[in-house]
Amino acid sequence: MAHESIASTGWTDPHCPVARTADLVGDRWSLLIIRDAMDGARSFTDFQQRTGIARNILTDRLRKLTASGLLVQVEASSGKRRHYELTDAGKGLFPVIVTLRQWGERHAFVAGEDHSVLVAADGARVPEFWPTAVDGTPLTSDNTRVQHAG
Amino acid sequence: MAHESIASTGWTDPHCPVARTADLVGDRWSLLIIRDAMDGARSFTDFQQRTGIARNILTDRLRKLTASGLLVQVEASSGKRRHYELTDAGKGLFPVIVTLRQWGERHAFVAGEDHSVLVAADGARVPEFWPTAVDGTPLTSDNTRVQHAG
Repeated sequence: MAHESIASTGWTDPHCPVARTADLVGDRWSLLIIRDAMDGARSFTDFQQRTGIARNILTDRLRKLTASGLLVQVEASSGKRRHYELTDAGKGLFPVIVTLRQWGERHAFVAGEDHSVLVAADGARVPEFWPTAVDGTPLTSDNTRVQHAG
Repeated sequence: MAHESIASTGWTDPHCPVARTADLVGDRWSLLIIRDAMDGARSFTDFQQRTGIARNILTDRLRKLTASGLLVQVEASSGKRRHYELTDAGKGLFPVIVTLRQWGERHAFVAGEDHSVLVAADGARVPEFWPTAVDGTPLTSDNTRVQHAG
C-alpha cells in the first residue's frame, strides 16, 4: 500500500487518482528527491547535495516518502549509514518524472539554453512520449473526459 | 515563455528540466487546478468548488499559473466575470496529469476502491502509457541515465 501515511489524515479528493498522487508526491522537493533516487542518489548526503534542500525539509520528505512506500531504508554493508532505495511503487513514478522533464524541455527553456538530457543505455535520447488511444490517435484534454466515480 | 515569474527569483536547479517544471507546477494545488482546467473548469468558483481550496491560496495559484503562461484570463461574453483557459503550454501538461493519474490508479487505491477514470471520445479508457526506446523497449530508471549539462 502506498498511502498509509495519508489514510489517517484523509485525501484531498479521495476518488481522484491524480489527486491521490499529488497528495503523496505533489511538492517540489518530493519530486526532486524521486528524480535523484532514479539518478542514483542513495544517502542523505547525496540528496542534500544534489537538491540543495534544507536538512530539516529533507528529513521530513524522506520520512514521508518512506512512510508512503515510495522509498525504503536499507542497511548499507560494513557499518555505513543506511541509505534509501526506490520501491517498485517509487520506480513506477518514472513516467511522471519523464513527462515533467519533457514538458520542461519544451516549455521552460529558451532556444540554446543548456539542460541535462535523459538517455537510454545506448546513449540515445529518450523519445518524446504522449498518450494515445488504442488506434494511435494522440490524446489531449480536448478529446478525453473524466468520468467521475460514484 | 513559460517562466517569466521564476526567472527573476531563480530556478531551484536551472539546468534540469524536471526541476524547472517542478518549480512551476510542483505543488498539489497547482496540479489540481491544471487537472480541473483540463476537465472544463473555467471560473474562480469552478476551481474553488472542485478543489475545495481556500480562496486566498486559489487566488495565489491562479496568479502564478497565469504569470507563468500556463493559464490565460479571457473576457467572458455579456458582462460575466473573466475566466481562465489553458494556454498551449498549459495543455502541454496533459501527459503529466495522465501519468499522475495512472500511477495513482496502480498504487494509491486498493482493489475495489472507487475512482474516476479518464476516457477518450468513444468512451474507451485511456490506455496505460509508458516511455519506450525507439525499438519499443520499455524504459525505466534502471536502463536510462541523466547526462548532466555543461
